[in-house]
Amino acid sequence: MQDNFSERIRKSARSHSSRIVLALDIVENKIERLQPRAISIINDLSPYLSSVKINFHLLLPLGFKEIAKINDIAHANGLQTIADMKLNDIASTNETAVNMLWRMGFDAVIANPFVGYDGALDAVFKSAHTAKNGVILLVYMSHPAASEGYGLSIASPKRSLFEEFISRAVTWKADGVVVGATAPDRIAAVRKRIPKETLIFSPGVGVQGGDAKKSVQAGSDFLIVGRSILESSDPVEAAKRICRESSNRSFA
Amino acid sequence: MQDNFSERIRKSARSHSSRIVLALDIVENKIERLQPRAISIINDLSPYLSSVKINFHLLLPLGFKEIAKINDIAHANGLQTIADMKLNDIASTNETAVNMLWRMGFDAVIANPFVGYDGALDAVFKSAHTAKNGVILLVYMSHPAASEGYGLSIASPKRSLFEEFISRAVTWKADGVVVGATAPDRIAAVRKRIPKETLIFSPGVGVQGGDAKKSVQAGSDFLIVGRSILESSDPVEAAKRICRESSNRSFA
Repeated sequence: MQDNFSERIRKSARSHSSRIVLALDIVENKIERLQPRAISIINDLSPYLSSVKINFHLLLPLGFKEIAKINDIAHANGLQTIADMKLNDIASTNETAVNMLWRMGFDAVIANPFVGYDGALDAVFKSAHTAKNGVILLVYMSHPAASEGYGLSIASPKRSLFEEFISRAVTWKADGVVVGATAPDRIAAVRKRIPKETLIFSPGVGVQGGDAKKSVQAGSDFLIVGRSILESSDPVEAAKRICRESSNRSFA
Repeated sequence: MQDNFSERIRKSARSHSSRIVLALDIVENKIERLQPRAISIINDLSPYLSSVKINFHLLLPLGFKEIAKINDIAHANGLQTIADMKLNDIASTNETAVNMLWRMGFDAVIANPFVGYDGALDAVFKSAHTAKNGVILLVYMSHPAASEGYGLSIASPKRSLFEEFISRAVTWKADGVVVGATAPDRIAAVRKRIPKETLIFSPGVGVQGGDAKKSVQAGSDFLIVGRSILESSDPVEAAKRICRESSNRSFA
């Protein structure tokens, strides 16, 4: 039987001894340079990565064939690929979007649980799990205003929206959750509440102030890193350093 | 001085006597057929439209040049174009995404106020308003589970998240808000709370059960319609009918 997404990304992580999800957030004015740069970054850094995350930096300007080729090359380098859509649309749009992502070769998609299940993320979970692909839900982001959304307290049931989102991730059988590396206590709180096999992805290491070692200690399985590697004068060395800093807990 | 987005879309609406924002949600397996179909729909229907909304159905598989051409043709037909990203990312990604949208020729973007302002939508408003383009915020969507997000009651300040989002739209100077056509009372409540020049866009007319006439009576300025037109046996007639049904209030 074919492995599902979380099994595949665990294997990639173990074989490369890396918890890094490289965010391919390439800022490049010349659109024809985007795909070649993405490919060259993957070829240079893949021994130190578990996976790559592709965001609107590439999804918007590039078309089907260009994205599919990037995914092919990532797979040939033993990496999984995640489409960072932060999807929060109605079911008919979500279904068309994620079916297109799977055709392009993606292994997982990031979605926002805020939009709810019925007539919205139900379509994403159904399509992803049929294809043995993954759904990763945002549970607490790492930017300054994250408290204006994820940090709200809701009246009924009386708890934080953050706790509500953890509960949705468990009920809906998310393959992973996103919790910012900027608050290790929050990572530890999520780790206690979700099943062992549900992966924690933590963005915000480096530029945004998060610490790789503390995040992994608190329970993060993967670190989403973009600018700290891509904007480094020596990206390979930067990736190796983050691998070392996050090797304090062995892979499950 | 150049008109801003809300002035431009009002002019398009008046000159075509139409409140319709056509959602170009084309479901088409053959990717090479997507752009020609989008263009032919625009050419056939533009006399009965104010604008088109482009979603992941096209944004994902098509590249820069193909999307830019669709926008060019829409503009040549006197229509405005809106990118329906439901954007809810951090500032650096949002900035790259919306700058790319403006380069592609879009006039406005849809974003989710849930993500907050600092380090998130601040970048979207700044970029859009510098370019005289628009930001439309989701305030209440039209799908079954919308209550799981937009309908939540928050503890502090004690009010519904829906009311909080209206207040964000006002404070952040959104050019428009999205409020589902499925609840005219809610449209009327928003109309009372936002400035006269802030436009209300209502999806959910037709397939989802919303009524064009009642929405406009309650205060909607624009109706976002996709499947009711695209899946009709006579799309021109379907668009004309919605124009007639929504002509009960004159354009401001």
